[in-house]
Amino acid sequence: MKVAVIGTGLIGTSIALALREHGSTVWLADSDPATVRLAADLGAGEPMPARGTADVAVIAVPPAAVAATLAAVQARGAGAKGSMGLAHCYTDVASVKQLPVTQARAAGCDLTCYVPGHPLAGREKHGPAAARADLFLGRTWALCPEPETSTQATETVTALVRACGAVPLRTDAAAHDRWVALISHAPHLVAAAVAARLETAPAAALDLAGQGLRDVTRIAAADTELWTQILAANAAPVAEVLAAVAADLAEAARMLGDGEGSKSVVSLLDRGQAGVARIPGKHGGAAREFAVIQVVIRDEPGELARLFAATGAAGVNIEDVRIEHSPGLPVGVAELSVRPAEAGLLLEALEAGGWPVRG
Amino acid sequence: MKVAVIGTGLIGTSIALALREHGSTVWLADSDPATVRLAADLGAGEPMPARGTADVAVIAVPPAAVAATLAAVQARGAGAKGSMGLAHCYTDVASVKQLPVTQARAAGCDLTCYVPGHPLAGREKHGPAAARADLFLGRTWALCPEPETSTQATETVTALVRACGAVPLRTDAAAHDRWVALISHAPHLVAAAVAARLETAPAAALDLAGQGLRDVTRIAAADTELWTQILAANAAPVAEVLAAVAADLAEAARMLGDGEGSKSVVSLLDRGQAGVARIPGKHGGAAREFAVIQVVIRDEPGELARLFAATGAAGVNIEDVRIEHSPGLPVGVAELSVRPAEAGLLLEALEAGGWPVRG
Repeated sequence: MKVAVIGTGLIGTSIALALREHGSTVWLADSDPATVRLAADLGAGEPMPARGTADVAVIAVPPAAVAATLAAVQARGAGAKGSMGLAHCYTDVASVKQLPVTQARAAGCDLTCYVPGHPLAGREKHGPAAARADLFLGRTWALCPEPETSTQATETVTALVRACGAVPLRTDAAAHDRWVALISHAPHLVAAAVAARLETAPAAALDLAGQGLRDVTRIAAADTELWTQILAANAAPVAEVLAAVAADLAEAARMLGDGEGSKSVVSLLDRGQAGVARIPGKHGGAAREFAVIQVVIRDEPGELARLFAATGAAGVNIEDVRIEHSPGLPVGVAELSVRPAEAGLLLEALEAGGWPVRG
Repeated sequence: MKVAVIGTGLIGTSIALALREHGSTVWLADSDPATVRLAADLGAGEPMPARGTADVAVIAVPPAAVAATLAAVQARGAGAKGSMGLAHCYTDVASVKQLPVTQARAAGCDLTCYVPGHPLAGREKHGPAAARADLFLGRTWALCPEPETSTQATETVTALVRACGAVPLRTDAAAHDRWVALISHAPHLVAAAVAARLETAPAAALDLAGQGLRDVTRIAAADTELWTQILAANAAPVAEVLAAVAADLAEAARMLGDGEGSKSVVSLLDRGQAGVARIPGKHGGAAREFAVIQVVIRDEPGELARLFAATGAAGVNIEDVRIEHSPGLPVGVAELSVRPAEAGLLLEALEAGGWPVRG
């Protein structure tokens, strides 16, 4: 399969990496040439050639830019004899689907070869450096073909989704937008509303912040411009969910304030627990399960070099590292993630080397 | 130091493990003898002896049980000549502080030797098996001495906090409770309100759930009974935060619904982003902004050793490391956090060594 990826941010580059693993030829383009170079250095493909027709072009740009980009690439080489545009068919990855479809129709795009798509995967980081070939492994990838969309285009894009390790879910743009309002867009604004309370909080209060607050507010760190676009494009369904959440919270606040809180609070906590239980487990997670080995290290230059010399000598590949240490403390903890089968070997090697280690 | 830990759940056993590593003698007690045996097997200490006086007793029981437990252990051996109760001084670990203090005063406890405390650390799991000696490493631990509390008691408990690797933060019970309302208790109910929306959602909508929703709602899976106790004990400050969050969300819902959403949404997202940015890194990071340098590395044993040999040779201390790579890809990206003043030096040194690097 020959695939053109237009937009080498987190999602575009991750798709490119996944497809390269699958043996596809990938062409990369972006309005920022530096991100194309980094993506190419990471093995995501090669810069877009001046001519040539891909099997699929993935338009990985912000929602409001999808239709204009689609129109431009479909027009590429228009008028030239036998020109196909950039690709035989097209998909996008925007988090809303009605907006790009409506705009593409208004712009006179050829909808027969356009399969609107949305991979339900992401990270709070952006850019090609954060890209991962396994980002879509086991994740749902919504595809919302329009009535005009050809069966062949839908089949080609479905094959691309499967090649990325994702699970295609066919639906229509309107249902998609209602659902993501519930499971993504409204929760995003709620996270922002919790985080907004911290703006004027005393610094000492923030020193008390634990993992719970970090998790609840993590997505609020995302790009404001992109999210404004997403929320504006899905306003009515998001408003409905937000109004319901606001009503529940206002009621809980009123009853807690009146000293009659216990009952309403229990009910809200119980409903929350029931709701959480309905979220499916992370599919395909087993592939990313690593064993974690903790090593106490001194907080000084050269210590990590000595530690990784020891892990290298043991022939064990470190999949991830976290350094945990407190300012002012002379020691910290390095958490080494390794494949479970290699954990015993590494533990033994580090213990033999005199490292204070916990498996 | 001789320490008695009363309540060998996650927090109590973690404190015991941390203190054992520090060379303290630890006595363990719990209303459930099986958890004491498990904690002892894990190396957390030995079962409470029939007599003897500890330097500190840590009361690691639910908030509403703290005062009764304190009264009981202070009364131990009362009437016996020279009796000291169980310990010379006492602390607790409850997530609210005004409730146990008020109840302890009402119960006639000796407040001169009671230092109310709250370690800001925890895990999703409970029980002694989930305990970790490093649970408190670098975490804030609030201490809220009352006017009656003796300097000596406060100093002893502060030493215990430091021995656990935590950072003591002195405040008063009222401020503590307002602050945890903001950074823990209100966010908990907000997470529940988001999760509650999922209770009646179509199953296909839940198939679209990504990591963002899982993070926002994760804490809503916690124990309803414990949280009802916590929220009821901190009702007024929690109500105030919830009311403000509800008002922001209701306003955003109204404006999105009216098609005039963009402006209010941008403002809420911006405030959210500013709020998130104020949350200190896991270990007080906000005070220490690091520069991040990205290095493309081969995914093979020894590569990290070579990289850290290069950083060590440059004399630069690496404050944190993230390795970003996809299983199966031959290269990844190491993100090195360093003090901004040292970033230029490190960039030069790595470039000179032929590392593909981005500042």
